[in-house]
Amino acid sequence: MADLKTFRFVYGGTTLYFGPEATEKAKDHLVGKKRSLIVTGKRSAKDSGALDDVLKVLDELSIERKIYDKVRFNPTVEIVEEIVEELNSFGADSIIAIGGGSVIDSAKLAATAFAEGRKPEEYLRWIARASKHLFLVAVNLTHGTGTEVDRYAVATITRTKEKLGTAVAYPDVSIDNPKYMLTLSKSQTMFTSLDALYHSLESAVNPASNVMVRDLSRVATEKIREHLKSAIERPRDIETRYMLLYASMVAGIAIDMAGTSIIHGLEHGLSGVVPELEHGAGLAIIGPEFIKLLYSVRPTETWEVMRALDPSLRPSPDDYEKAGEALRRFQESVGFNLRLSDYGFNEQKIREAVEVSWPLYDSRRFPGLPEMSKEDVVSILRKLL
Amino acid sequence: MADLKTFRFVYGGTTLYFGPEATEKAKDHLVGKKRSLIVTGKRSAKDSGALDDVLKVLDELSIERKIYDKVRFNPTVEIVEEIVEELNSFGADSIIAIGGGSVIDSAKLAATAFAEGRKPEEYLRWIARASKHLFLVAVNLTHGTGTEVDRYAVATITRTKEKLGTAVAYPDVSIDNPKYMLTLSKSQTMFTSLDALYHSLESAVNPASNVMVRDLSRVATEKIREHLKSAIERPRDIETRYMLLYASMVAGIAIDMAGTSIIHGLEHGLSGVVPELEHGAGLAIIGPEFIKLLYSVRPTETWEVMRALDPSLRPSPDDYEKAGEALRRFQESVGFNLRLSDYGFNEQKIREAVEVSWPLYDSRRFPGLPEMSKEDVVSILRKLL
Repeated sequence: MADLKTFRFVYGGTTLYFGPEATEKAKDHLVGKKRSLIVTGKRSAKDSGALDDVLKVLDELSIERKIYDKVRFNPTVEIVEEIVEELNSFGADSIIAIGGGSVIDSAKLAATAFAEGRKPEEYLRWIARASKHLFLVAVNLTHGTGTEVDRYAVATITRTKEKLGTAVAYPDVSIDNPKYMLTLSKSQTMFTSLDALYHSLESAVNPASNVMVRDLSRVATEKIREHLKSAIERPRDIETRYMLLYASMVAGIAIDMAGTSIIHGLEHGLSGVVPELEHGAGLAIIGPEFIKLLYSVRPTETWEVMRALDPSLRPSPDDYEKAGEALRRFQESVGFNLRLSDYGFNEQKIREAVEVSWPLYDSRRFPGLPEMSKEDVVSILRKLL
Repeated sequence: MADLKTFRFVYGGTTLYFGPEATEKAKDHLVGKKRSLIVTGKRSAKDSGALDDVLKVLDELSIERKIYDKVRFNPTVEIVEEIVEELNSFGADSIIAIGGGSVIDSAKLAATAFAEGRKPEEYLRWIARASKHLFLVAVNLTHGTGTEVDRYAVATITRTKEKLGTAVAYPDVSIDNPKYMLTLSKSQTMFTSLDALYHSLESAVNPASNVMVRDLSRVATEKIREHLKSAIERPRDIETRYMLLYASMVAGIAIDMAGTSIIHGLEHGLSGVVPELEHGAGLAIIGPEFIKLLYSVRPTETWEVMRALDPSLRPSPDDYEKAGEALRRFQESVGFNLRLSDYGFNEQKIREAVEVSWPLYDSRRFPGLPEMSKEDVVSILRKLL
């Protein structure tokens, strides 16, 4: 540890700057821009110091800016449409997203819808295929999303409560600066890292995975196992934040290559119906039950990652119960013990969530998984109330 | 194992296709080209089947081609200049390199020198800074080079015997197809994988390394440890080749991020003076002695990778002898036991090699390494005769 080097590489369409000097080093990419719309949420951009850093860069480069700060978590297409309007009225030549997954995903969708003159919903329903976008810089404020190095964006269609994901745009430049993680609350620290953990597990188990995805996922899981507890105990420790941010970024590359799986598919339904449910919390509530299913049908792939949590696991379907237990125990060890009822879920809301998430859940099913009806899924979730 | 998936991703300036269907899947990138110069060596492009596959693609796309097949290992600037002349006289709009490091590196230098109208030597001496190059496809035929995913090229300046490396160009498209590895001889199999192993070790220990470099290097080292012996025993096993090729590619990303170290610096001198010395063999002859030095000054970083060879190592400078021994034992376990005298080295040639490699060796020294005179290095090498 203690080697908090700032480094840079190009992955996909993104030039990523990672480390404590990332913001300063990324500056050159904005040279020549005239008008930037800053997209963010209410507080974290300010609290983390990221907004000040970005404003300083914009001042130095004499770039006009306007701030749109209305993105909340689990954002809707209406928010995205508002951002598109702002881009139009401000005459922006660039967009700087400062936030976690919700902010960056909203900005990705807006940058694309703006450049192509289409509705965000068309991308979410895979009617339109994104081929260009407004120049987009992502300043990532959580160690969970991975969206700073992937093509994906997730947003909710309000009238149907569908939370949908689509491939839309890599940020042109992304900034992963561990300084900005120091102000994450205890629960944000936990939920975002658990999100990254499920990115690792699910990308590895997805039939689209490959040896590289599974190695990256294992590396990310090792770092989360090693550092999450201390980050919760010592939130202002930058070395720990550096490692968790690194884990999240690496897991982001893994999902970019292979996608997620049924746990994400189902969770998007749950937090679509109860928007107060943080994505990472939703995943961790249902994860240990559903990892058993995945382990029983793809034991080798799941084991390749989960052995980083429990080295005594074997790559055999017989170990599926043990795998669920290992995951549950790890979550408990970092203090996670929430249940669906903590977020006001009841039988009816579960049914609603399963209904809403079914298309997404179903699209992430794969050959070999046991046939499950909605009723089967409801009965698993009922145990998690 | 047995999951020989073909996958694709963008790293640096390269779109890489990896896997048994890589060649076919990369085809689209050549659409629109009219005249390709194929750069290759005498035999491996034919023996491996890669040349036939490429010619088939060119036929399908009605692309005119000319074949230049005079690249040998440890190529010279004269060879690169000849390729530039061929590009000019043929009026090429693209260059397809089919071969190992020597072929791809020659093509990188030629593609750049051609596009910028400068001499290859200017890049090798870092006088010219490369900023554009002719469209370059690399079809990689060894699991050692890493050059298919990095910016670097190495060539020898004949009159001074200097073997120099420079940052010049990422291939635009690279193809890593394990099918083409099945015809590598036993010694090629060994030497190229040992090259990849030293890419892992040296990039990790380079002060420019970072957590990602060290994780990638560890992953590559694990795969080499796990699969090299079986590849030598069962050369036609595609699963083993897939894994070794993957290790080499991952180590290539690691060197692209962090560069190599003194072992590569010194080896380029040895094979500059005795061109019959295969690069991987040269590394493996001197590696165990010099890894001790590196371990003693950067124990944590070296350990992060070397623990994949010997889990009993500790990240302590005290373990430097043990680290050298672990490396030597691993090399012996795959049948490597060559010495400098096997390649006709004597005291005088060692001195000549140290003289020639000194600038490169010296440039890869870093703070903390004990001061060593040329005489000190000669006396280490003398023990390896």
